[in-house]
Amino acid sequence: MNNFQVQDPDYETRIHKSFANQTAMSTLGVSIVKLAPGMIEFAMPYAAIFTQQNGFLHAGILSAALDSACGYSAYTLMPKDADILTVEFKVNLLSPAKGQSFRFVGNVVKPGRTLIFSEGRAYAIDDGREKLIATMSGTMMTMLRTAAS
Amino acid sequence: MNNFQVQDPDYETRIHKSFANQTAMSTLGVSIVKLAPGMIEFAMPYAAIFTQQNGFLHAGILSAALDSACGYSAYTLMPKDADILTVEFKVNLLSPAKGQSFRFVGNVVKPGRTLIFSEGRAYAIDDGREKLIATMSGTMMTMLRTAAS
Amino acid sequence: MNNFQVQDPDYETRIHKSFANQTAMSTLGVSIVKLAPGMIEFAMPYAAIFTQQNGFLHAGILSAALDSACGYSAYTLMPKDADILTVEFKVNLLSPAKGQSFRFVGNVVKPGRTLIFSEGRAYAIDDGREKLIATMSGTMMTMLRTAAS
Amino acid sequence: MNNFQVQDPDYETRIHKSFANQTAMSTLGVSIVKLAPGMIEFAMPYAAIFTQQNGFLHAGILSAALDSACGYSAYTLMPKDADILTVEFKVNLLSPAKGQSFRFVGNVVKPGRTLIFSEGRAYAIDDGREKLIATMSGTMMTMLRTAAS
Repeated sequence: MNNFQVQDPDYETRIHKSFANQTAMSTLGVSIVKLAPGMIEFAMPYAAIFTQQNGFLHAGILSAALDSACGYSAYTLMPKDADILTVEFKVNLLSPAKGQSFRFVGNVVKPGRTLIFSEGRAYAIDDGREKLIATMSGTMMTMLRTAAS
Repeated sequence: MNNFQVQDPDYETRIHKSFANQTAMSTLGVSIVKLAPGMIEFAMPYAAIFTQQNGFLHAGILSAALDSACGYSAYTLMPKDADILTVEFKVNLLSPAKGQSFRFVGNVVKPGRTLIFSEGRAYAIDDGREKLIATMSGTMMTMLRTAAS
Repeated sequence: MNNFQVQDPDYETRIHKSFANQTAMSTLGVSIVKLAPGMIEFAMPYAAIFTQQNGFLHAGILSAALDSACGYSAYTLMPKDADILTVEFKVNLLSPAKGQSFRFVGNVVKPGRTLIFSEGRAYAIDDGREKLIATMSGTMMTMLRTAAS
Repeated sequence: MNNFQVQDPDYETRIHKSFANQTAMSTLGVSIVKLAPGMIEFAMPYAAIFTQQNGFLHAGILSAALDSACGYSAYTLMPKDADILTVEFKVNLLSPAKGQSFRFVGNVVKPGRTLIFSEGRAYAIDDGREKLIATMSGTMMTMLRTAAS
């Protein structure tokens, strides 16, 4: 793993505050379980209201959690005043999202001044056994809030 | 647009039935507004419980609706007994998802026996003006239910 | 199609000059056949030295031409002094690249100040019949050359 | 790393034979430097005939080598009689491809009967220092040659 330097020593408070404002995450039941420079980890319980036609977690719902994991891994390295935008992401779905709970990990691969590239992994925990079910690669953009805007 | 032939003349019933089983879509408030061979269109109202940190619709939530749009556009062309899996998708987020309602369109670009390639477009309707906010390209897989499985 | 405004009225000269410096494109035999604000079209003959194991054009070689098509479609809209970088692209390969010649089209979908999003399509011309064989979606970045760098 | 089981004990011969038929790879100067179940590594020298407008290796050329790396990592795990197709891939370009030589690594992440998901990494070696310059995620398809086809 990389050893990233944060620009904002108080990044943890900043992340928790921003995450609390992502109502989508609390609605999905996603919570932060680990946080470090350039990485974040989420947990999410299975929820019958977010399934696809076969009763498994919807691939798009998984992707929403993965998007936030990639985004917040990048956001740990951004300056205090920055906002963040997802530019793009790609998801590969390796196995059905069958499980009682899910784990999402986001890691920065390449931090840049404007763009940060992160990768995410989603795991299903099914009867106590964890399995990789999806991967994400995504580009995040640092938006500096200026006095004018 | 392409002129696709369906294998299942009763595909509309099959799509509506499968869609009704995607609790994720009803939870998001997504509904089918148009359906044709190789295409589907969804509508979704803004919902404050599905936003990111700035109050706009979460990119991952958008992607969930786009994933279903791509998936069901492909599913219109699949045989009666087939199930469907998303193999992968990529989303490019062009503008913040600012609006009172949203429209999602999925179109098959290349139907194949095992894999179907679809594209999706997401639009925000903000004060009556519609704007393209995201694109998706995705691969869907036909899963034939055999007697054994 | 969109009606894009160029920032550099002399964009055609700029594109041709930059393209001439992409030795990869001349090595592949790619040439510009159409150019307009936000779009470009290339032609490329089949070349036995760029095939995969079955004698068809290598998917990665196709992608190289598509990447340049997406890039130059974006570059038409950039300022005179800008350089361009590809941030990312995704390719979906729909059919084997079987043909005597190939056509590549790049179109800007969303121009932004820093990032430009383009889509590309690759066609094989086989015995006079044209077929869509691949699609690309890609993000391009405007790099402004400053006095200092 | 995963510990993959091959189906074809003679996979090394099969890979080398197929690779020798990819004229695109020999034209680019790519060679196999490591091979194991589910992984492959390539080397490629800088070549002035494959550059973009600034004299760095063209992103699309990089992607061609990465595509082959992902493809052959998957091909190690396929049955003796199988042919392989790239379904899709995405590349993220992290830094300009500046260097005297390049290294490409392809690793299977998830092997499936029909589809195999692989990831690739491209490195530039510049004045003896190696740097990650691009990542790929890609889906490969096993094509079984039947008596009929």
